[in-house]
Amino acid sequence: MTNWIAIDWGTTNFRAFLVSKNGEVIEKITAAKGLLSVAQEEYSSVLHDLLLPWEKYQFKKLPIGMAGMVGSKQGLLETNYLQTPVNFENLQEHLVEVKLPWNSTAFIVPGVSCTNPFNFYDVMRGEETQLLGLSSLTGQKELSVILPGTHSKHAVIKNGILKYFTTVMTGELFSLLKNNSILLKNLPIQIDNSEAFLKGVDIGYKSPFSIAIFSTRTYQLFNQLTLDSVESYLSGIVIGNEISVLSRANSYYVVGDKIISERYLKALQYLNKNSFFIDGESCFLNGMKNIVSHYIKRVWK
Amino acid sequence: MTNWIAIDWGTTNFRAFLVSKNGEVIEKITAAKGLLSVAQEEYSSVLHDLLLPWEKYQFKKLPIGMAGMVGSKQGLLETNYLQTPVNFENLQEHLVEVKLPWNSTAFIVPGVSCTNPFNFYDVMRGEETQLLGLSSLTGQKELSVILPGTHSKHAVIKNGILKYFTTVMTGELFSLLKNNSILLKNLPIQIDNSEAFLKGVDIGYKSPFSIAIFSTRTYQLFNQLTLDSVESYLSGIVIGNEISVLSRANSYYVVGDKIISERYLKALQYLNKNSFFIDGESCFLNGMKNIVSHYIKRVWK
Repeated sequence: MTNWIAIDWGTTNFRAFLVSKNGEVIEKITAAKGLLSVAQEEYSSVLHDLLLPWEKYQFKKLPIGMAGMVGSKQGLLETNYLQTPVNFENLQEHLVEVKLPWNSTAFIVPGVSCTNPFNFYDVMRGEETQLLGLSSLTGQKELSVILPGTHSKHAVIKNGILKYFTTVMTGELFSLLKNNSILLKNLPIQIDNSEAFLKGVDIGYKSPFSIAIFSTRTYQLFNQLTLDSVESYLSGIVIGNEISVLSRANSYYVVGDKIISERYLKALQYLNKNSFFIDGESCFLNGMKNIVSHYIKRVWK
Repeated sequence: MTNWIAIDWGTTNFRAFLVSKNGEVIEKITAAKGLLSVAQEEYSSVLHDLLLPWEKYQFKKLPIGMAGMVGSKQGLLETNYLQTPVNFENLQEHLVEVKLPWNSTAFIVPGVSCTNPFNFYDVMRGEETQLLGLSSLTGQKELSVILPGTHSKHAVIKNGILKYFTTVMTGELFSLLKNNSILLKNLPIQIDNSEAFLKGVDIGYKSPFSIAIFSTRTYQLFNQLTLDSVESYLSGIVIGNEISVLSRANSYYVVGDKIISERYLKALQYLNKNSFFIDGESCFLNGMKNIVSHYIKRVWK
């Protein structure tokens, strides 16, 4: 038995992968059990319960590699941010080792900070593992990457090293506007509408955020938008606007889950930018293997 | 008895002014009873109840001039939008007359629409009265104006005519981020902090909206912001960002209530822009007198 467990534990979601010696994923556990829904003192017991389905694999004896908000101040154990430039070796050197109550060892990948192109501090936790995993997976050393999300990250990798990145709060703003804004009140059930989405991309790309979003109202007033496509339109605006603030590159990698990434690909294509999709989980797993495999092997000795 | 009533009835607030023949305000009634809290079929009865304190002035016999969301689809009676360019005469020509259940006459000022500098439809209701009132009050024919609010308006007046404007959703975004965002959770009681505010203005002015706001989190993480000044900082960001999208002018008039306008003046001064404050109520009253006085006189005959 030389399996181990890779865990991506973020603000909203928990994803665990049971990985074999040769790096194959044997099984996967996902739960909507992120940082926001776990009390700090309960981290270990929540982890224990989430992994219970793997009693058959004797999970209590397996070493664990973790990345994400699990290493934040509100997480299992706080890890310091590493300043960019950052590569796999830098992350390995700063892995934080935790003994779990059932006596197995967990390694937490540190987060990364940088001064972003707008000249203030920026931070990530978890994405560094995906980003370096992406570079390793594709064999590409020069990359411009978009990781869509609640807090999207735009990152630049040069010579295989994570150089800098910017957080764009696209997902959270979309959700605030959708659920709480007076702009989107009293609408019928929304239907996915590609035309409305691209119309939104267009306005969002050309106009500042806080101006573009008002068009969701005026387009309704002047019957330029059907009432069941307002959400598609707004989604186009926030994604188009996010793309407008990208650092310029010839092509972009979009790394994330398939559904949300497809929206970015559609918007990038509409804006005549080259783009490639790579599944976020594959990047995470590759990154995690590269970062923790050495330590996992040490534990197995 | 030749008094009349001027009413500014918006999304959130109701403001009525009892005006004498020579234009002096005799009394004022304000209530947090805007469009959002009035059912459409109850408009007349709500208006009646709000004006009850003026039974001593026999309000039921007084003509009324109204502007604001009261003329929207969800209001007392829908008035069409007038396309810019718009002056007092254009508004007068399109006043909508309403008989109230107690048999007095109300005149509703139409809203205004334009194609904004970002090339999509924009609308206002109520601000047109303030803007033309401002021009008349100051005697200035060329003006760049900021009307801060839930949906701020930036307007350009040339040769005394309202030419175009842009809506910036500053106030609503601030309130969404303050009340619903995960960025501002679990903070202590907030204290007004001028230094934090200006730091926010600086970042907001230099960075796109959806990027700048993330600094409220990173500045806390790196102890560059005290936990009780996060709201001041965020307020600086959204106002600084709004100013960054202004059309260029040598000086700006800020028209609104004193407290919020002072924040804009402070931000404009910090960014080395000339600015002047004019009380929003004075502009509204001047505009309303110019627009409806002729009709009010006709009713009094």
